[in-house]
Amino acid sequence: MVERPGAGMAADIAEQPDVYARMLDTVAGPVAAVAAEIARRRPRHIVFTARGTSDHAALYGAYLAEIRLGLPAGLASPSAVTVYGARPDLRDSLVIGVSQSGGSPDLREVVRVAREQGALTLAVTNAPDSPLAEAAELSLDIGAGHERAVAATKTYTAELLALLMLVEGVRAGAGALPADERAALDALPGLAAEALAGSAPEELAARYRFAGRLITTGRGYAYPTAREAALKLMETSYLPALAFSGADLLHGPLAMADPDVPVLAVVGGGPAGESMRDVLARLADRRADVVTIGSQSAGGVHHLATAPVDERYAPLLDILPLQRLALSLALARGENPDSPRGLKKVTATR
Amino acid sequence: MVERPGAGMAADIAEQPDVYARMLDTVAGPVAAVAAEIARRRPRHIVFTARGTSDHAALYGAYLAEIRLGLPAGLASPSAVTVYGARPDLRDSLVIGVSQSGGSPDLREVVRVAREQGALTLAVTNAPDSPLAEAAELSLDIGAGHERAVAATKTYTAELLALLMLVEGVRAGAGALPADERAALDALPGLAAEALAGSAPEELAARYRFAGRLITTGRGYAYPTAREAALKLMETSYLPALAFSGADLLHGPLAMADPDVPVLAVVGGGPAGESMRDVLARLADRRADVVTIGSQSAGGVHHLATAPVDERYAPLLDILPLQRLALSLALARGENPDSPRGLKKVTATR
Repeated sequence: MVERPGAGMAADIAEQPDVYARMLDTVAGPVAAVAAEIARRRPRHIVFTARGTSDHAALYGAYLAEIRLGLPAGLASPSAVTVYGARPDLRDSLVIGVSQSGGSPDLREVVRVAREQGALTLAVTNAPDSPLAEAAELSLDIGAGHERAVAATKTYTAELLALLMLVEGVRAGAGALPADERAALDALPGLAAEALAGSAPEELAARYRFAGRLITTGRGYAYPTAREAALKLMETSYLPALAFSGADLLHGPLAMADPDVPVLAVVGGGPAGESMRDVLARLADRRADVVTIGSQSAGGVHHLATAPVDERYAPLLDILPLQRLALSLALARGENPDSPRGLKKVTATR
Repeated sequence: MVERPGAGMAADIAEQPDVYARMLDTVAGPVAAVAAEIARRRPRHIVFTARGTSDHAALYGAYLAEIRLGLPAGLASPSAVTVYGARPDLRDSLVIGVSQSGGSPDLREVVRVAREQGALTLAVTNAPDSPLAEAAELSLDIGAGHERAVAATKTYTAELLALLMLVEGVRAGAGALPADERAALDALPGLAAEALAGSAPEELAARYRFAGRLITTGRGYAYPTAREAALKLMETSYLPALAFSGADLLHGPLAMADPDVPVLAVVGGGPAGESMRDVLARLADRRADVVTIGSQSAGGVHHLATAPVDERYAPLLDILPLQRLALSLALARGENPDSPRGLKKVTATR
């Protein structure tokens, strides 16, 4: 049976509220156990290693670790270890490999070396029997189920939710999550369903059919969303999409903004959203065509609305209309986002 | 007096061999003193904080720290601290702020908080009296002199050289640099002059006059070069330039490569250059128009040659023809790279 183009990606996207609900039911327990073990071992800092879409989930995890745990956190370049043979001293470190497939040899190697170098290691994957999961001391199965399309959607948000539950679990130590935290998590499936039912990216897709490039931007927790939206647009529509943190955009690339370049700005209802106002004002000076995504329309020409939540939860909602936009735009451009040219599910880089 | 467009950027670019020579003469001493102090304090890991061009120098510094010092190193997102008020525990950490102007309030704030949180702090700037230099416990003046153009060129490479000398100094501890290391550094001014005298990016600029976008790529030490080349092209030619590590390119964005998209691939003569061969083969499959930069032509359609040096030194040479390319392309497109639209020398982000 040949499905219509994009049917797989559409199904993956639509399934996300159910994935959230299922994870809160069945993944929360294993996450709490891993979190309690991490809390017991008291790492002094966290290093994430990931590639592609999972790199954006890792970036979210790094913000969470710094802000919610007070632990310095960063993303490692696998090549320092795999290409140059670096052997950093990783005692007191927690090294987390994030990968949907768990099949990338370089991530497995980074985690293997990290374990050898004294780190506590954790694999976060959608493939519990993968080489990455086997290489790490601790392992978490995000349980997102089989992903139909090559471009990752539900495995991305499942990684976000797993990392959120993990960090809040470490914060809670051996105890249960605080009631307000658990309530906020439990609201996510419903809010995700609303975000997918709301606003119509299809109209925007028609508008951008002939755009030559796009800029995406966001700050703080919204920056991974901007990065992931850009990657999704590149993977499925082959459209150059440049992602900048709101602050970095002002340091140079703002010169590229003009009325011919659509800007997708992720603007939350908290401090990062507030700090995006300067960026939006500068974009308006350049007469940029701005779409805002999130709980604040903030003067954009168009707006894709999601529920007003603490900015910490917004990445689980704001990416949803952007995934739909990437899907619609690919279809409008005559592409099949289920099997983009030149893209494989497991990419073997060393 | 009105100078011809690009005269400032051309002068800045041309001055770099002299800046290297001057730094090896006058900056090496202060760097060695700071390096000895860092070696004495024995940090357990390094966090860099920077924006724009300086972020690419910081990325180079992070590779050096991991590979040459065996210290985990990463780049911090200032917004965790400045937007969300994160207060990470930074005892045993070295936090290095890198900034040409030293004037960005968010970097100053990150360094101020880091110092309060127990970190050893260092400012690397071209402005020894700047707020960033004042906020940090230790400070290094890269001594690149006044930069004429808004787009940073000589301050970028001066930051690279300062970080290289710093890391090698920490490795040497209180002692002098090993003779072979010092000899390799002393060769750089001459090799930089050769790199600037060699190959003619002007022809490539004519070729790319009507390109709609560009991709840059490199791995390991060459990745910061790919990132900086992309930013320079964006800042001066307003051309969307997408930078990917060679490995990340294979994880999705490869789909964007086709015969209409020039690819600038930085390919060294060491292990990272070797590992780029897969990437180049996949690009060839997609009939991409590839320019290689570095000591290996590696089958590219065009080649911008620099001297064969250890990949660790190559970033100080490989960016030079790429800066010339950015300048030439901006001029070919009728832009004035000395004062790009929408760009200021000191960008005040919070």
